[in-house]
Amino acid sequence: MLVLGLDPGTARTGYGLVREHPDGTLEAIAYGVYTTTPDTPTAHRLLSLYHQLNQTLANHHPQQVAIEELFFGKNVTTGIKVAQARGVLLLALAQAGLPIYEYKPKTAKMTITGFGDADKYQMQEMIRQLLGLENIPKPDDAADGLAIAITHLQSTRFERLSE
Amino acid sequence: MLVLGLDPGTARTGYGLVREHPDGTLEAIAYGVYTTTPDTPTAHRLLSLYHQLNQTLANHHPQQVAIEELFFGKNVTTGIKVAQARGVLLLALAQAGLPIYEYKPKTAKMTITGFGDADKYQMQEMIRQLLGLENIPKPDDAADGLAIAITHLQSTRFERLSE
Repeated sequence: MLVLGLDPGTARTGYGLVREHPDGTLEAIAYGVYTTTPDTPTAHRLLSLYHQLNQTLANHHPQQVAIEELFFGKNVTTGIKVAQARGVLLLALAQAGLPIYEYKPKTAKMTITGFGDADKYQMQEMIRQLLGLENIPKPDDAADGLAIAITHLQSTRFERLSE
Repeated sequence: MLVLGLDPGTARTGYGLVREHPDGTLEAIAYGVYTTTPDTPTAHRLLSLYHQLNQTLANHHPQQVAIEELFFGKNVTTGIKVAQARGVLLLALAQAGLPIYEYKPKTAKMTITGFGDADKYQMQEMIRQLLGLENIPKPDDAADGLAIAITHLQSTRFERLSE
């Protein structure tokens, strides 16, 4: 099972592709960040993001996609931009006919570290261990993408084993 | 000059196509609402919205597009959904290579009625008069789409005349 995890943003969308092998081990297939330039009009940044995601889909053919749910903090203007980017990601995934699963950041923390208030370092160290990596995956947004993919694999493992 | 005006939403996106004739008169070419069904997954609603907008672009070939800017009121959850929809609209417009102009709802009220606190009826009555329609255009979202298109035409008239 190959899962793509996405952590949406306009300037930076983190992505991580995680494969679960038949023995249950997890492998990071690819991870990184889709970036767009702030001095470009919003619509063109969204177009660039759309192309970058489609490139990942074409290169890796994930079977399922997990994407972070949004919640709005203090900065509503940033929130609007992130939601616009997330809309474009969802569109591309729907066009590709991919099953989409949504997870709250807290659920990811809970699933990966066992408690919902885990800090960034605890999360990243657990991701490193679960994926058998030598170093913590960088940058942070890419680690967040991997986290959402792992969250999905771990949350659905029981269902998949009992199929 | 043919302008498409868009008032974004997930459940209902209003659109209005307004032509400015060489003598300065305005004509409503088409208007209506793109609707999506609430019991459908978000990604599929966004895909439907994308197809409906592309259909309008293919049918009418507007030269410029005016779209309402978002502001968040009390309902942040609705705000996220509207912003996701708006991201998809912007993507389709960028793919079509169309020039995009953004206007605040207050600017539309100011431009059309002459004051920023105009109520819905005052706006709709002015739209009716400016477009030479017998009746107020319905539904409200379609009238909002027309309002944004008219706002753009009126805001840029001076520039266009001095070209």
